[in-house]
Amino acid sequence: MPSKRYILICKRHKFDAMPTVKNMVVDWLGDVKFVGRNEKGLKINFEIALEGVESTELSPMETLLASLGACSSYYIITILKKQRQDIKGLSVELTGLRRDEPPRIYTEIHMKYIVKGSGLNRNFVENAVKISNEKYCSVGGMLSKAAKIVYSYEIVEA
Amino acid sequence: MPSKRYILICKRHKFDAMPTVKNMVVDWLGDVKFVGRNEKGLKINFEIALEGVESTELSPMETLLASLGACSSYYIITILKKQRQDIKGLSVELTGLRRDEPPRIYTEIHMKYIVKGSGLNRNFVENAVKISNEKYCSVGGMLSKAAKIVYSYEIVEA
Repeated sequence: MPSKRYILICKRHKFDAMPTVKNMVVDWLGDVKFVGRNEKGLKINFEIALEGVESTELSPMETLLASLGACSSYYIITILKKQRQDIKGLSVELTGLRRDEPPRIYTEIHMKYIVKGSGLNRNFVENAVKISNEKYCSVGGMLSKAAKIVYSYEIVEA
Repeated sequence: MPSKRYILICKRHKFDAMPTVKNMVVDWLGDVKFVGRNEKGLKINFEIALEGVESTELSPMETLLASLGACSSYYIITILKKQRQDIKGLSVELTGLRRDEPPRIYTEIHMKYIVKGSGLNRNFVENAVKISNEKYCSVGGMLSKAAKIVYSYEIVEA
């Protein structure tokens, strides 16, 4: 029989290997409005886009595109900073093409990164954009299973 | 040669068959903060969650879960309303399990809908939850390609 200490170590190991758990709650606010909140009370408001109605909040599908842009940008910045590149700004323009039949998923997503900095090395930028999208970005890791993701970049001296 | 009218009809048909295009821009605000905006200027703020740092905005991956909750809830409500069900409230608790290796995607997402209403028909609710998740919700249509999505519901008389 294993000792108590052995069991504890095993349990701890099992716990450490557990995936991170994220919890969110989404409440219907009436009409086509929703609010999502995490355990600390941070919120996001949504409004379902209806034809002919001026929205006051982003839709879930718009938010999906924005999440992809933010997530992938973060890794690009982190990688370039580690390589001591003088990155001063980053914007990404995202375009999602939705199909007509339900579920109206994006079948293609195009991303164009505009990377601003002083004397940025083109190879480092290209590599950072590639690694972020193909290895690190979790949102991209999910959406790329459903949509073809195409990315490009432009370097602006600043 | 086709008449002018014929060409116009063809062009229109081609346009109607085009997928909807969504555009977003995401800007780096410095540090680990980002803002996404659509063409009408509606915004969402993001903050990348770092260990030991108290976030002031939701992370892209938290937002992904919330988008799924809002999108799927919308269709549940719409379906139940069409069936003249007296739905008075809807909340959904979402739990995402992320794997440890990059990209740190959700491998499983659990959703529990709490449907409030007066005399709601259990079969109609079950059917609405199922159809929303399996047919209509675009966010779910994308995320279900990467994660196993498990859902349940509870009816609360109100």
